[in-house]
Amino acid sequence: MNIVVAPDSFKECLSAKEVASNIALGIKKVLPGSLIHEIPISDGGEGVLETLLNGVGGRRLSVAVFDPLMRQIIAEYGILYDNKTAVIEMAMASGLELLKEEEKNPLRTTTFGMGQLIKDALDQGCKKIIIGLGGSATNDGGAGMVRALGAKFVNDKGEEIKEGGGNLNELHTIDLSEFDKRIENCEVIVACDVSNPLTGVNGASFVYGCQKGGSQQGLEFLDRNLSHYANVLKSAVGIDVSNIPGAGAAGGTGAGLMAFLNGELVNGIELILQTIKIEEIIKQADLVFTGEGKIDEQTLHGKTISGVASMAKKHGVPVIVLTGKIGKGIEGIYSVGVSAVYSIVNKPMELKEAIDHAPLLIQDCAKNIMLTIKCFNKA
Amino acid sequence: MNIVVAPDSFKECLSAKEVASNIALGIKKVLPGSLIHEIPISDGGEGVLETLLNGVGGRRLSVAVFDPLMRQIIAEYGILYDNKTAVIEMAMASGLELLKEEEKNPLRTTTFGMGQLIKDALDQGCKKIIIGLGGSATNDGGAGMVRALGAKFVNDKGEEIKEGGGNLNELHTIDLSEFDKRIENCEVIVACDVSNPLTGVNGASFVYGCQKGGSQQGLEFLDRNLSHYANVLKSAVGIDVSNIPGAGAAGGTGAGLMAFLNGELVNGIELILQTIKIEEIIKQADLVFTGEGKIDEQTLHGKTISGVASMAKKHGVPVIVLTGKIGKGIEGIYSVGVSAVYSIVNKPMELKEAIDHAPLLIQDCAKNIMLTIKCFNKA
Repeated sequence: MNIVVAPDSFKECLSAKEVASNIALGIKKVLPGSLIHEIPISDGGEGVLETLLNGVGGRRLSVAVFDPLMRQIIAEYGILYDNKTAVIEMAMASGLELLKEEEKNPLRTTTFGMGQLIKDALDQGCKKIIIGLGGSATNDGGAGMVRALGAKFVNDKGEEIKEGGGNLNELHTIDLSEFDKRIENCEVIVACDVSNPLTGVNGASFVYGCQKGGSQQGLEFLDRNLSHYANVLKSAVGIDVSNIPGAGAAGGTGAGLMAFLNGELVNGIELILQTIKIEEIIKQADLVFTGEGKIDEQTLHGKTISGVASMAKKHGVPVIVLTGKIGKGIEGIYSVGVSAVYSIVNKPMELKEAIDHAPLLIQDCAKNIMLTIKCFNKA
Repeated sequence: MNIVVAPDSFKECLSAKEVASNIALGIKKVLPGSLIHEIPISDGGEGVLETLLNGVGGRRLSVAVFDPLMRQIIAEYGILYDNKTAVIEMAMASGLELLKEEEKNPLRTTTFGMGQLIKDALDQGCKKIIIGLGGSATNDGGAGMVRALGAKFVNDKGEEIKEGGGNLNELHTIDLSEFDKRIENCEVIVACDVSNPLTGVNGASFVYGCQKGGSQQGLEFLDRNLSHYANVLKSAVGIDVSNIPGAGAAGGTGAGLMAFLNGELVNGIELILQTIKIEEIIKQADLVFTGEGKIDEQTLHGKTISGVASMAKKHGVPVIVLTGKIGKGIEGIYSVGVSAVYSIVNKPMELKEAIDHAPLLIQDCAKNIMLTIKCFNKA
């Protein structure tokens, strides 16, 4: 049999790669001669780099950049096998995980480091940059990123303002005379699974500012600053980002990417599945395994399982889902292309036990499913 | 599809009948047009009556008999569809469950009531009696049963001794002149899953006497009494039961059945499967579901799953096992004919939750297995 194993991670338990390899081990116990494609999937944002490097092939590069508080760090990004496509996870240069709890401050944090990664990719000759948003520490509308690429953000006295969303109120003009021209010949694709506008009650500041360390008062200030920024930006590039869905992603980085880098915001899982050309592999398969740590109503909204399943459905390939927890209200999962859903849990047990034994539980579950299929696969 | 659903009970959770009907419900959600044979199975001893009445058809009879302490009660037994075969569960007339905790006393308890059930079956014209041992309150070597059928147990003064294993030391002669002759033309089959001898450290008294309320001193006395009984019995019928495996079953009732009723001791599950002619049904099936509450190494020893699976294996029919708990060391289950094993538990949960939701968990599990099979069943 030709089997595709394309699971997401089991969060707080196993990486997508570990889940895939344990499913494959279970399959091999029954059909040692089967052709198994292990394709671990991360549905956009964090994990996109590993997923694409695994799925397409490529290399990792380490670059000295500034972290969200403008301290020097080493951050990684990837260049895929074609040597033309860079994959950048915003969080690696500008992520919340780079900061201690007490350092979190959306007034001061900047996307400058992320801009440096983009610049490095341009230096390497990349003509396409895939960017995963998610996990950002920032609320600067992508201003730092744009400045790292040569733009000057100046106040009414012609002086450059400080980094951070808390200083955008002083912004008077954006000077693009020294902005990196190479970006014009570079396709920028942004994996983005939120559709928040830049400002307002559903905007970047109010929805995500709090988890980045913002106070209520600070969020109101940041929201006004992003409104002001949108106005200045409109004067500079002629684009009105204020009502574009997704402009508010990653503290407004979505706006910056669309306005200055001509970035196209796309659904994360679709981008990934297209980039790794998984459809070519799935359409020749006899069976697809996918899965994630738990299945619930949310599973149907742009996550790995629904992405993989809908692709398999197109080609009439059965899809088996493995999960740790089958929640309520999952009936809709069958209509997106999933054939059957199994929990790896094999007796009443606590979550901790399930997590501790997950590798073997996954193997056993996959094994018994294959034993069942083997009895009926007369084709 | 033609599907046999033949599970045991999930102990302390659902009866075999309930398990079977929930599996069937799950199957019907996927294949509403399938032919489903619901055949709940109890592996010998208690439950044999319901299993055989379900599997073969027949009727229940209620009879006034004496309980283990010679008090009048109403007990049930069955006569199968052929009107010639009785099914008697010993426990219904002579069972431990008929006594309060403080009434348990293997010195006094008798199998007399069980003998009355046998007599009633003979009165009804039965030519075959299937007896399920298990759950007995007695340690009288089946003496009460034999006396109910007309034998006289007398002391050295020619007086009848009292009922109960504690009085067998006074036994001098067994007078069979008025013993029911009809038993000679009746086949007696005994479902028995233990192989204990009548006496000694592995005998009826020492191994099972304690749970029937015996003291250590009492057990030694009872063991000596059964030895003495074996000697008198040998004089009466010419059969030496002292070293026959299974003679110690049900407080020595095994010995009484073999010596006086020409009873044949057989493996419980095999007897049941043969009686309900399940092989005829299984060999025409495309798939068999079986299961029990938990699966462990014990599962391989003469239980429902291994009985059903080995029968299906003969005819190359796949067998799916559903269970609440998959224990350790079950690898051997595959070699007896089981194709695959699934736990109904669908997330980390406590035992109580699994029990409370067992019907729906069983349905969902069966449903997803059938969804999987449906994808591959091209035959």
